Amino acid sequence: MRASYHEELNGLLDSLQHMAVLVEVAVSEAAASLLEPDLARAEAVISNDSQLDAMHEELEYRCLSLLALQAPVAGELRTIVSAIRVVFELARMGDLAAHVAKIARLRFPDSAVPDSLRENFSRMSEVCVAMIQLANQSLKDRDAVAALRMAEIDHEMDHLRRDHFGVLLGKNWSGSVEQAIDVALLGRYFERFADHAVAVARRVIYIITGQFPEGEEWPNA
Amino acid sequence: MRASYHEELNGLLDSLQHMAVLVEVAVSEAAASLLEPDLARAEAVISNDSQLDAMHEELEYRCLSLLALQAPVAGELRTIVSAIRVVFELARMGDLAAHVAKIARLRFPDSAVPDSLRENFSRMSEVCVAMIQLANQSLKDRDAVAALRMAEIDHEMDHLRRDHFGVLLGKNWSGSVEQAIDVALLGRYFERFADHAVAVARRVIYIITGQFPEGEEWPNA
Repeated sequence: MRASYHEELNGLLDSLQHMAVLVEVAVSEAAASLLEPDLARAEAVISNDSQLDAMHEELEYRCLSLLALQAPVAGELRTIVSAIRVVFELARMGDLAAHVAKIARLRFPDSAVPDSLRENFSRMSEVCVAMIQLANQSLKDRDAVAALRMAEIDHEMDHLRRDHFGVLLGKNWSGSVEQAIDVALLGRYFERFADHAVAVARRVIYIITGQFPEGEEWPNA
Repeated sequence: MRASYHEELNGLLDSLQHMAVLVEVAVSEAAASLLEPDLARAEAVISNDSQLDAMHEELEYRCLSLLALQAPVAGELRTIVSAIRVVFELARMGDLAAHVAKIARLRFPDSAVPDSLRENFSRMSEVCVAMIQLANQSLKDRDAVAALRMAEIDHEMDHLRRDHFGVLLGKNWSGSVEQAIDVALLGRYFERFADHAVAVARRVIYIITGQFPEGEEWPNA
């Protein structure tokens, strides 16, 4: 019985990591569909989101079953309750990737990102993908020290967001109101990707150490 | 032991409802600080957010303690796991209220909402407050039928969001790029308030019935 329980728990963590890889692909494909722009890639991100939502439901159900049937305590209780939250964070990232892809689709064959901000968005998407990879790697290796690096990477996102507001509100901005709105919302979606990655790292640290990391850069968001 | 456990569980639900009332106040005060505009009210929403974050941590800790010490099953397990999620949703609404208040503060003594959209935002805030009240009431009364009305109310939010994009992108829009960005982000924040209220109602229905409501209007968000 206990052996099968540990198999189930390990299976759950494997599924979680698999989901994280799918989310990484969704985020990077959404960014590509926006910057190329590429309609087929945008459509794929949008239609694949239902798969992530289904994984969310299935993994949450498996977590609840483990809680109900095994009544875990201590580190295992922390792991399962945190897994519920990590799955939710990953599903939200998938939703945000679909939001980004929908804006790409809406503006196709134009790009919703003006030339003056291509580099900014390209870097934002790289940073987001790196954050998801770091979260996933730290979960896989149970490496709290790696997860702690997340807050550092997140600083670059803050800078990138400030930079693009600087472009939007600067005197050289020549785009339309529509473009400005697209950029502001896209920037918000990328900022939220990063927030969710930080939240995953926060939970990974909690799983491993039993303590949440402290400080303003680790909001419980 | 069991009596004290039930006391704790009921105390948890009372605290949850108390938190929901504080969130309702935060949302309505944030909207007022934006529309008046009122600097003191904006500052109060921003500084009170840390209280909601502290409640989030404390209530989550109480849920985990109940899970660990009492190993609840069936309806009680559902209730406690759902409570963790509801507390999170409420805390996110508090964060969003602080975001709204920060935009109000940034533009003070001007209003971030142009006259042509005052009515739209005023109604959005009313609908959000009504949604939080409905979620809280249905939790208090364990009334799944009331919670089901949430998806209906959420439709009005969708209409209001479309209306304000119509104004922003219409030929009569005479505001600046900065104003358009403020409105787009504020609209997004109000839309997310509503999403979180729907998520709370979804969990309330799950607590009561053991089933999640189905259909596109009930995303797992």
